[in-house]
Amino acid sequence: MISLTMNRQAFLNNLRITIRAIASKTTIPILTGVKLVLTNDGLMMTGSNVDISIETFLKSDDEKANMRIHSTGGIVMDARLLNNIVAQLPQEDFTMEVMENHQVQITSGKAIFTVKGLDVENYPRLPEIDETTPLKIPVEILKQIISQTVFSVSKQESKPILTGVHVLVENGQTLKAVATDSHRMSQRVLTLPNETANFDIVIPGSSLKDVGSVFSDEEDDLDVSIADNQVLFVAGGIRYYSRLLEGNYPPTDRLIPTSYSTAVEFEVRDLQKAITRASLMSHEGHNNIVRLEITSSGVKLFGNSPEVGRFDEDLAPEKISGEELTISFNPDYMKEALSAFGDAHVEIQFISPVRPFTIRPLEDADSFIQLITPVRTA
Amino acid sequence: MISLTMNRQAFLNNLRITIRAIASKTTIPILTGVKLVLTNDGLMMTGSNVDISIETFLKSDDEKANMRIHSTGGIVMDARLLNNIVAQLPQEDFTMEVMENHQVQITSGKAIFTVKGLDVENYPRLPEIDETTPLKIPVEILKQIISQTVFSVSKQESKPILTGVHVLVENGQTLKAVATDSHRMSQRVLTLPNETANFDIVIPGSSLKDVGSVFSDEEDDLDVSIADNQVLFVAGGIRYYSRLLEGNYPPTDRLIPTSYSTAVEFEVRDLQKAITRASLMSHEGHNNIVRLEITSSGVKLFGNSPEVGRFDEDLAPEKISGEELTISFNPDYMKEALSAFGDAHVEIQFISPVRPFTIRPLEDADSFIQLITPVRTA
Repeated sequence: MISLTMNRQAFLNNLRITIRAIASKTTIPILTGVKLVLTNDGLMMTGSNVDISIETFLKSDDEKANMRIHSTGGIVMDARLLNNIVAQLPQEDFTMEVMENHQVQITSGKAIFTVKGLDVENYPRLPEIDETTPLKIPVEILKQIISQTVFSVSKQESKPILTGVHVLVENGQTLKAVATDSHRMSQRVLTLPNETANFDIVIPGSSLKDVGSVFSDEEDDLDVSIADNQVLFVAGGIRYYSRLLEGNYPPTDRLIPTSYSTAVEFEVRDLQKAITRASLMSHEGHNNIVRLEITSSGVKLFGNSPEVGRFDEDLAPEKISGEELTISFNPDYMKEALSAFGDAHVEIQFISPVRPFTIRPLEDADSFIQLITPVRTA
Repeated sequence: MISLTMNRQAFLNNLRITIRAIASKTTIPILTGVKLVLTNDGLMMTGSNVDISIETFLKSDDEKANMRIHSTGGIVMDARLLNNIVAQLPQEDFTMEVMENHQVQITSGKAIFTVKGLDVENYPRLPEIDETTPLKIPVEILKQIISQTVFSVSKQESKPILTGVHVLVENGQTLKAVATDSHRMSQRVLTLPNETANFDIVIPGSSLKDVGSVFSDEEDDLDVSIADNQVLFVAGGIRYYSRLLEGNYPPTDRLIPTSYSTAVEFEVRDLQKAITRASLMSHEGHNNIVRLEITSSGVKLFGNSPEVGRFDEDLAPEKISGEELTISFNPDYMKEALSAFGDAHVEIQFISPVRPFTIRPLEDADSFIQLITPVRTA
């Protein structure tokens, strides 16, 4: 049975990652708990709900953890209570001892907690995934791909497949990530070096947001493995399992226009701030739309709410080419799309007031594209 | 009609204080607005709801405000929209111009907002309060009095008078502030130099919390004036009006015990942390109580939840005197009471397990007292 003395903060760091997978209320009571398994190699924590599971491992020779293992074993403990208790202990180190009947004693200084645990044998098993040939991808790149696409997934459960990001790896050569809610679309393409994997999966957007915050940029490579209906991300002692969405993702390549009649270039931050200003007016109105007027002499942005007032601003494009055009769109889609570019310069290409327009970075224009459907106005 | 160019941030600083008094939804539409009155002396902003009103004044010669007054006048504008607009403007300065039909144009750089305002004549008048002989009190002291008492006001509207803090100024000699929810009581007493005021008022706890955050420690003295059913706090260009609670506050002096049989001294922070730990267990149980056992050899703290587990800790009192005693109480009351003492050392005095006990600072013991009613256990 577990008998362990270790650093409080190192324990909490791992528990707080694991706890992300643990619901505070669930129909399977043991799943409100965190599974702790101590071996001579270290301490494994497991948390799980219907959609995702997280395992974190702290090596016994981790310097900050300062683990003194007196006896090994396993126990399941209420995750939130355990987190609160360890967070409030008076000293830097604490001792955890499992006793008879799954009672757990936690001591630090003169504070003694005795709480009921659950038999580790009753904790459900995680899915088994073949990890022999994972796709390797730098954490930083994966986080970028996620932040550039995941905001475009549908929030509506009526089309469940669109609540995920479609990830395609073809012949280990290129990775393509696509998200669309049928009003806008985000697509990121990446060239992969020396990979052999082939994926065609749809990962829930909520899981990807999680992955983006669970893994730290400090880790270099992250391993991605796939089973029938599960994906597993592994890096730096953290294993993140997510179910996949079932069904066929609609074809999206044909949505991307191959020509344009009007193009404007902008510094992203400038444009984003102007769109935010215009949206202050559009948000007051019934249809949340702003209007862009492109002429050879300049670009004007308008926001209007008949009840409240109006906004207009002469923008400062870096380049204008092609035909004159007036187009209306949802400024919130535009703001989110622009924020995915960071500090870059972008080209926006238009075909007509009723056809989707695209936003691409000036550099490496094929790697990243955002598409927004305009709103027809009378 | 108003025509003004000024610093955006200085405008926002005052607007964000004024807006605290402005409800986003109200049955009197004009009260969702902020009243702006520009004279050659400066800019007055007014916000008001049923319970409180705030006026802020920015002097025309304020250096940071950098005001250029082209024309004076008044207007009422939707406070939240105005705040959002000015916050998003592109340049450091902005211009506000009132035009025909209460239209207001706000410009900065190339951004132009035109929004509908309301006639300033339709804004309700604030109560008139005689300010000729205010009570003067340092802002820092007032904030301390508030933070030491206001947490004990009742949250239950069934006894409305107990939702306020009773403030008594007798013969301008002493100020006494008392709050109680009938389970615990906080009382702060202060000697006043050279005052002539006489108050016996009950100020809503919610208003006092506001006052604590609206006024800045940078100001020295704050003036307090009273009218029939209003109190007015004035300092540093800010005027805060609150209605008073009507009715008789129950007598509280007789609740304070005059003797004790057991006393213990503690360093506040240490005791507070131990109480927090014990409350992790008591919060899991049905009756949120912890138990203190005082013997000549030491003080032990217990927390217990039959379902979840138990806690115990040998505390480190600085002094124990009198009879042995075991007493149970709500740890949340104790935590809040202790937090009002800051870094001090306190003496806790007990009479019996069923009589209220008191907490006082070791220094200046008569100035501040917290009283907590214990919970009888079987």
